[in-house]
Amino acid sequence: MAQDKKQVEQITDMEVDFAKWFTDVCKKAELIDYSSIKGMFILRPYGYAIWENFQKILDGKFKETGHENVYLPMLIPESLLQKEKDHVEGFAPECAWVTYGGSEKLEERYCIRPTSETLFCEHYANIIHSHRDLPKLYNQWCSVLRWEKTSRPFLRHREFLWQEGHTMHATAEEAIAETEQMFNIYADFCEHYLAMPVVKGRKTDKEKFAGAEATYTVECMMHDKKALQAGTSHYFGDGFARAFDITFAGKDNQPHHPFQTSWGVSTRLIGGVIMTHGDNNGLVLPPRIAPIQVIIIPVAQHKEGVLEANQAVMNRLKAAGIRVKMDDSDQSAGWKFAEYEMKGVPLRLELGPKDMEKNQCVLVRRDNGEKSFVSLDSIEETVQAMLDAVQQGLYDKAKKNLDENTYACSSLEEVKERMSTQGGFAKTMWCGDLECELKMKEEAGVSSRCIPLEQEHLSDVCPVCGKPARHMVYWGVAY
Amino acid sequence: MAQDKKQVEQITDMEVDFAKWFTDVCKKAELIDYSSIKGMFILRPYGYAIWENFQKILDGKFKETGHENVYLPMLIPESLLQKEKDHVEGFAPECAWVTYGGSEKLEERYCIRPTSETLFCEHYANIIHSHRDLPKLYNQWCSVLRWEKTSRPFLRHREFLWQEGHTMHATAEEAIAETEQMFNIYADFCEHYLAMPVVKGRKTDKEKFAGAEATYTVECMMHDKKALQAGTSHYFGDGFARAFDITFAGKDNQPHHPFQTSWGVSTRLIGGVIMTHGDNNGLVLPPRIAPIQVIIIPVAQHKEGVLEANQAVMNRLKAAGIRVKMDDSDQSAGWKFAEYEMKGVPLRLELGPKDMEKNQCVLVRRDNGEKSFVSLDSIEETVQAMLDAVQQGLYDKAKKNLDENTYACSSLEEVKERMSTQGGFAKTMWCGDLECELKMKEEAGVSSRCIPLEQEHLSDVCPVCGKPARHMVYWGVAY
Repeated sequence: MAQDKKQVEQITDMEVDFAKWFTDVCKKAELIDYSSIKGMFILRPYGYAIWENFQKILDGKFKETGHENVYLPMLIPESLLQKEKDHVEGFAPECAWVTYGGSEKLEERYCIRPTSETLFCEHYANIIHSHRDLPKLYNQWCSVLRWEKTSRPFLRHREFLWQEGHTMHATAEEAIAETEQMFNIYADFCEHYLAMPVVKGRKTDKEKFAGAEATYTVECMMHDKKALQAGTSHYFGDGFARAFDITFAGKDNQPHHPFQTSWGVSTRLIGGVIMTHGDNNGLVLPPRIAPIQVIIIPVAQHKEGVLEANQAVMNRLKAAGIRVKMDDSDQSAGWKFAEYEMKGVPLRLELGPKDMEKNQCVLVRRDNGEKSFVSLDSIEETVQAMLDAVQQGLYDKAKKNLDENTYACSSLEEVKERMSTQGGFAKTMWCGDLECELKMKEEAGVSSRCIPLEQEHLSDVCPVCGKPARHMVYWGVAY
Repeated sequence: MAQDKKQVEQITDMEVDFAKWFTDVCKKAELIDYSSIKGMFILRPYGYAIWENFQKILDGKFKETGHENVYLPMLIPESLLQKEKDHVEGFAPECAWVTYGGSEKLEERYCIRPTSETLFCEHYANIIHSHRDLPKLYNQWCSVLRWEKTSRPFLRHREFLWQEGHTMHATAEEAIAETEQMFNIYADFCEHYLAMPVVKGRKTDKEKFAGAEATYTVECMMHDKKALQAGTSHYFGDGFARAFDITFAGKDNQPHHPFQTSWGVSTRLIGGVIMTHGDNNGLVLPPRIAPIQVIIIPVAQHKEGVLEANQAVMNRLKAAGIRVKMDDSDQSAGWKFAEYEMKGVPLRLELGPKDMEKNQCVLVRRDNGEKSFVSLDSIEETVQAMLDAVQQGLYDKAKKNLDENTYACSSLEEVKERMSTQGGFAKTMWCGDLECELKMKEEAGVSSRCIPLEQEHLSDVCPVCGKPARHMVYWGVAY
């Protein structure tokens, strides 16, 4: 057992150094590896399998709501990127530039897409002519590149995988409804699949997407009480459509500019799952997105009939649609327990000769370590119910963390004090002025996370300047 | 009908100008659009949906055979690309180079991956230590970039979507078996899903992949009798493993180099489908990969009960797992017929008031225009059987084209003559010398397509030099 224990001991204690614990888990659970370029990570099979599960669920929801997938080029000519002023200012500083094709210097530089609004607009200008061509509801699964200085597995990659939806509508109302619909799909995905409770709101002007009129955001609280922006949905009005000269003939036979949205989530969500649910034994995965939901470990597998009995249980669970794996390798039981705990498999099923005699097996929950002896008679239902219990248990625990660490403050001083001792989300009123937002950042070290859709009236005045308050805002320290 | 007819007339006649017909179909069937960078194309929803169907089928086959998906960075440092001599010589001339990150000049240039052998090798060097770590059976779905001078939809993109498998094995035998297994999966996919009969063989040294010991290829014949290389599978021996210093401790506790394969197919296969099955009315899609298998067109849809009856048939087909769409828009029937013919939908189902009285509907096959009146009683089985018939019909027609245009030749002169009049595949013996291969190219304008696995003994000598023959080779003009 010395060696088995060592495997676990190699992870930093999360209460000692959360950042180090996080990268340890990413490496030891074999989610990620480093490449020779700083900030460009390798998604290993186990990490990629989580992303594939995200894709399957989200892609289904996108298609149910009428979206179609497309693929646009990865390169953007510099002149195209420059067509929308705010947008280029936001993204140009972190573009990677292609200047040579083979041995020839290019006449114009191309950047690797940091996001594809400009490419979609160029395409839309070609294919949108009449109100009959609207809406266009497109989505793209791809990688994007942002040449950032700092990097961290999942949270900040120079290259990361994501999906980017880009839609065009005949009216502003339709576009706003689309922005909200996709934002709600993200919130639902976080809560019901990732077991991550969310705060839904709009970004302040300072924090919104470059070129957007409004950015809706889904904010989550991690185990260390820092905030993670989990997904965003943007409403553009007709700003890009004007810049790219996209017009359609309306039912009135007059030319109009269409109204636009974009929305995206990325592999960063995997980082969110790790930091929300993980513990000192490693990863803890919500069953609905776990590549392996149940790991079967035969006990005394050399004894007659044990492997066959385990195989039979595996086949039954598989037939019930449960993602199950059996490890009958020659590693020790202790090693296997540590290995699948590290990988966050929601349930462990043990079955040995004594259990066989009693027509039972052992189930151990990853989230709380609870051990039960259960009958094999309706093992499919028992396992499914326990997976649901793990899913709900993870959500409840995360919700408790969010609720206990969200509090109202009535002065900048109070925000500063609570933040330095407790962290989490401080909620205050706000006048809406950029100066007060900047002052909050400067003095209390927090950024505005969002203006929640569910507003509360905490007081009449902005705690920074004392002028009349316009909104309630959540503040926090963000990844 | 004048306008409906016009839609069809806008395609160039395939017998007049096949290349023009091909690009017309790509555009008019809404598979593709051009972007502002030459050679970088947009995959529109209908084109991308075909690719998604390919992915679903192939990804299933890869996983069934034990492969796992991963994602590696899109950029390769120049020094990494240079580690394997033959490989860099093959690819460096068509690399796109990133030289700036934001406003900073990079210390080393990075190329956008033209293929990822070097990246996989770098990763494998990190994660392969013991024979227990083998085999590694990885696959990646991504886009790659090759800065070529000429371009053509699907056939030659500067950026294209593909999958690249990269595997490592403890022995040469295992690696060769893997190379052959994946090559057979490709051949099976072409024949059973794309209805494209194949010639299976090995590439000559001249034509094999840069850095490979052997390249297996699946060659298909297009409607214009030119060849399309549909998929390749490479065996590398331990050449890359040596260059990248990848070693593992064997069961003998000694260090060994592992043996490697890679294999890939791309969106080029969509080009193959178009050029194999298309006709002067547009695209013709094999049912197994068609995004829409059956288009339902209600007849006299304003009459009472017609839409409901059509909807009911659609629901029954959907429930039977058939991909079906109903077009009840206000376009004319003629417009709809032309539209879905252009898009290559395998079956058209028409149902109007008279059919309803007789409990029947009309089915029209896209491949041969055959029209049948069939009972609604077991419409699911009838439609499925007819889809199978279309699938088989397309295969048979393509097989006939391949067989009728493949012929043995006994002299260079004969190859030259048959090629200029008939085209297709000439088969001859070959001594194995590069000079004779080059002479065949120079004088008859053909390249070696492959050394077929199924060898025939046509004569004892090479028709070019008269020396003893070693192989039978297929020659042709390739895309």
